Amino acid sequence: MVSKNQIKGITALHGKKGRTLQGSFLAEGPKVVGEFLNAGFAHQSVFVTDDQLFVGLNNRVLVSQAELQKMSALTTANNCLAVFSMPDSKPLPNAGLIVALDDVRDPGNLGTIIRLCDWFGVNHLVCSNESADCFNPKVVQAAMGSLARVSVHYTDLVSWIKQTSLPVYGTFMDGDAIYLENLPANGIIILGNEANGISDAVGKLVSKRISIPRFGDIQKTESLNVATAAAIVLSEFRRVSN
Amino acid sequence: MVSKNQIKGITALHGKKGRTLQGSFLAEGPKVVGEFLNAGFAHQSVFVTDDQLFVGLNNRVLVSQAELQKMSALTTANNCLAVFSMPDSKPLPNAGLIVALDDVRDPGNLGTIIRLCDWFGVNHLVCSNESADCFNPKVVQAAMGSLARVSVHYTDLVSWIKQTSLPVYGTFMDGDAIYLENLPANGIIILGNEANGISDAVGKLVSKRISIPRFGDIQKTESLNVATAAAIVLSEFRRVSN
Repeated sequence: MVSKNQIKGITALHGKKGRTLQGSFLAEGPKVVGEFLNAGFAHQSVFVTDDQLFVGLNNRVLVSQAELQKMSALTTANNCLAVFSMPDSKPLPNAGLIVALDDVRDPGNLGTIIRLCDWFGVNHLVCSNESADCFNPKVVQAAMGSLARVSVHYTDLVSWIKQTSLPVYGTFMDGDAIYLENLPANGIIILGNEANGISDAVGKLVSKRISIPRFGDIQKTESLNVATAAAIVLSEFRRVSN
Repeated sequence: MVSKNQIKGITALHGKKGRTLQGSFLAEGPKVVGEFLNAGFAHQSVFVTDDQLFVGLNNRVLVSQAELQKMSALTTANNCLAVFSMPDSKPLPNAGLIVALDDVRDPGNLGTIIRLCDWFGVNHLVCSNESADCFNPKVVQAAMGSLARVSVHYTDLVSWIKQTSLPVYGTFMDGDAIYLENLPANGIIILGNEANGISDAVGKLVSKRISIPRFGDIQKTESLNVATAAAIVLSEFRRVSN
């Protein structure tokens, strides 16, 4: 059983304002919720429709499907929903392979990129302040639990990049073919906005402009989606430097 | 001005039944519509809200934003909508680099894969009959005009693969690392269903099982999304064989 006020507090977490005010975010479905629990995230409450799920967990509440749907950000609520406290912010990284997003706005793209970072062992993702919020429910679900393992930071990219000593790679339509580069194991890979690419201010700090070669009719396809570009670039960095 | 009956006929094209009955499909937005026109697709009608768009084209109808929205499959209609005749079906390919989808169901994934085929110069995409319909409006929009250049076929994959003499590559979680393979310029690359991967019947015809190496904690991330896997696999085939 869940009160109207509880439901109101939880649906407020669908929006960024509510998440900031409460310092918490939602995760849904047994797989995603389980990954945050396994990674040691502090849960405030876990609502389940199936009494076999998360048996023995504290603050676990059995609810009806209708109650779960009222709290859910999904079209069809998926057996459980948990409220987690946002993790403490961590120091910005300055070593290893790091992905940086210059104003990636689409939650699905951000979620896919978090999942890719997890696959390719990239522990830190640094986003410009204008990028999509990683605790947006759409991002949490698209990242499929990978958000429990990849640390996502928000900062002014220009200031952060200026104080690191890492080589800075950026993807541009007119960059050098990535297949021919001697890519390092440590560095920053910058990916740009869906419509406008990397901003001029950040672009000035790029030490190596790279691109993914086209093989079709080069006059026709305009660009690759930022998440598919991220997949190819991360794969190349790991292939070459390992 | 557009009649209620016209609107009814056009919204019927949002569904597969309507498209099959009418032998036509929708494209929306100046960019996507323009790519189909440039590629020589036969249009039945083009509705525009902006009288500067497609000036002089036959069967062009100026409509209000409200009228366009009634016909549109988009949340927000984007300046124009066109009805195109479905292209004649072409013979199944048996040469070159070909991508085959074994039951890829998500329209967004199919659209992204069509766009990737276009980028990497793959002219033919062969889909199992259970795969998403390439003329679904969500696929047409996700493919961003690339559907005008990539031929998408639907067939029984087992029968088709059996009669080709091309090497058959398939992605599996337990396949050999793709980075170490001597990938050919001609062959079939099979990608499987979002949840279940490649079916047993199709898997039996695979001559080389490949996988994308993981670099994170290998116990954690379950799999890559099929569209990001397609991006990496296509990039590797083109990098190695060119």
